[in-house]
Amino acid sequence: MKKLILDLDTGIDDALAIAYALGSTNEVELIGITGTYGNVIVPLGVRNALAVLHLFGRDDVPVYPGVDQPLNYVSATPWSPAAGSVAVHGADGLGGAQLPDSPRSAEAPGSAVDFIIDAARTYGSDLLIVPTGAMTTMATVLHKAPDIADCGVKITMMGGALTVPGNVSPCAEANIAQDPEAADYLFRCGARTTMVGLDVTHRTVLTYAQTARWRALGTPAGDFLADMTDYYISVYLKNQPQIGGCGLHDPLAVAAAIDPTLIDTIGVNLTVDLDGAFRGRTIGDPERLRDADKTTQVAVDVDSQTFLTRFMNRVTALAER
Amino acid sequence: MKKLILDLDTGIDDALAIAYALGSTNEVELIGITGTYGNVIVPLGVRNALAVLHLFGRDDVPVYPGVDQPLNYVSATPWSPAAGSVAVHGADGLGGAQLPDSPRSAEAPGSAVDFIIDAARTYGSDLLIVPTGAMTTMATVLHKAPDIADCGVKITMMGGALTVPGNVSPCAEANIAQDPEAADYLFRCGARTTMVGLDVTHRTVLTYAQTARWRALGTPAGDFLADMTDYYISVYLKNQPQIGGCGLHDPLAVAAAIDPTLIDTIGVNLTVDLDGAFRGRTIGDPERLRDADKTTQVAVDVDSQTFLTRFMNRVTALAER
Repeated sequence: MKKLILDLDTGIDDALAIAYALGSTNEVELIGITGTYGNVIVPLGVRNALAVLHLFGRDDVPVYPGVDQPLNYVSATPWSPAAGSVAVHGADGLGGAQLPDSPRSAEAPGSAVDFIIDAARTYGSDLLIVPTGAMTTMATVLHKAPDIADCGVKITMMGGALTVPGNVSPCAEANIAQDPEAADYLFRCGARTTMVGLDVTHRTVLTYAQTARWRALGTPAGDFLADMTDYYISVYLKNQPQIGGCGLHDPLAVAAAIDPTLIDTIGVNLTVDLDGAFRGRTIGDPERLRDADKTTQVAVDVDSQTFLTRFMNRVTALAER
Repeated sequence: MKKLILDLDTGIDDALAIAYALGSTNEVELIGITGTYGNVIVPLGVRNALAVLHLFGRDDVPVYPGVDQPLNYVSATPWSPAAGSVAVHGADGLGGAQLPDSPRSAEAPGSAVDFIIDAARTYGSDLLIVPTGAMTTMATVLHKAPDIADCGVKITMMGGALTVPGNVSPCAEANIAQDPEAADYLFRCGARTTMVGLDVTHRTVLTYAQTARWRALGTPAGDFLADMTDYYISVYLKNQPQIGGCGLHDPLAVAAAIDPTLIDTIGVNLTVDLDGAFRGRTIGDPERLRDADKTTQVAVDVDSQTFLTRFMNRVTALAER
């Protein structure tokens, strides 16, 4: 069976991604969660990941804190999330939904990098990695262990926007904008990546009709998922009403990693703009335009209906218990 | 047999596009050239188109001047090309290559709009239109005769950049940047368009090795094509050396209109940014992201080798006579 590592800044849709992964035990084994930053700082994201795992009775999955600030970060104060991230996910990252702490602790600070390197060398092409926050830990992994680019591991990232506008600037998507240098390194280091960006995640939309099904379960997990996601939907309806609900960003990346037939992709050798108004833009690298080999597959279409049905079936079944 | 209208700002690669069309008489009948602006002003582009037709013995093809400035243009002086356009195509639009005037004149000023409307209503889905300059005449056509959006006519435009940077700004391609409002109207009016942009035209590259074959023909047409294109290649080698030659922008659009199997496309409902640093960017329209119907097909890959072979065969055969 395939092994899975989620590299999360847990966050609301990250929590839904954990639920999707835990509901996919017939196809994939979640061997660990690593903690990056973006929606929240690393310690809070790690706390949330541990708490979500505990809610679903999965205290067997280890959580490894990762790199906690951008590669080029220079400041007297620790990195903290942008006001926009706090607005979208709430100050606690979970939209104020009540969720007790896990009784257990995370692994050692910074241990994410070596955990991912060891797993990639152990499992090779049997390993799926899904980064859904700042790409700093992943870039650090590839910089420290360049051999991993060729070991067959599949990196399916949530982030970027190639054929649609960004969500934190006219061209930048939030996860890439957290650390453009890290994302650029990841795209250009030779690693095989699949980019699941706003091109497709804004087409997989959850509404109050779905969260009502979770609430109707009458379970602690159902209540938590409904409360948390209703908050997320309410922010979307206010900020981007044309979408009609909330985008299922991180869960779609997990689903596409497990079953690539859910998305259509095109091969593009990507780079990330680092300067001025275009900082954080994911775009084809002119220097590699004519290279026959394309290191990134960019999702440009998605079977939304199949994904949404599968998402609701798996997450609802998990929350029923 | 399919009918073809070229809407050109004749320019160097526009002249090559005329040659390709005239070399494709087994597949398509060139029923007229309409004159837009961009590389040059309308009168000069029309002069050049007439002269190229005369060089190839095709004084039977009428040339209709089109709209000669952007939709929102307000100035005391007539529109004139940007310094960058003059540098790329030369002040005469043909890189200084010697080409006598045609003995005949163009049709009436502004007649392009009604010519295209009449042809679209007459030929419907048997008509191919290939605009390769400012989209002002095309937008005026669709605004004046909205029924044409549904008549089956196929519009295959050279312009835009979706998955790669622009060539007149980090995000804007020259033809779109000439009149972003017109291009935006064309993309959003319901007309069926295929966008052949820098995504693919920078992968179809001509070098001095090919122009030497034209020069070796020892014909006036061979000399003209070689002189003109060598100028174009020299500018590319100076400005964008990584491309390794000149991009065959306009000829590729003609070739793809005649034979769509040369390109791979994805469906995207496009819009054009009109403001600030992003002015002129072609990008997916968030308001129409989830519409199942896609009015534009964007070329994202090209069979470069087949196209280049076909281009050289057709244009060289034409220049041999």
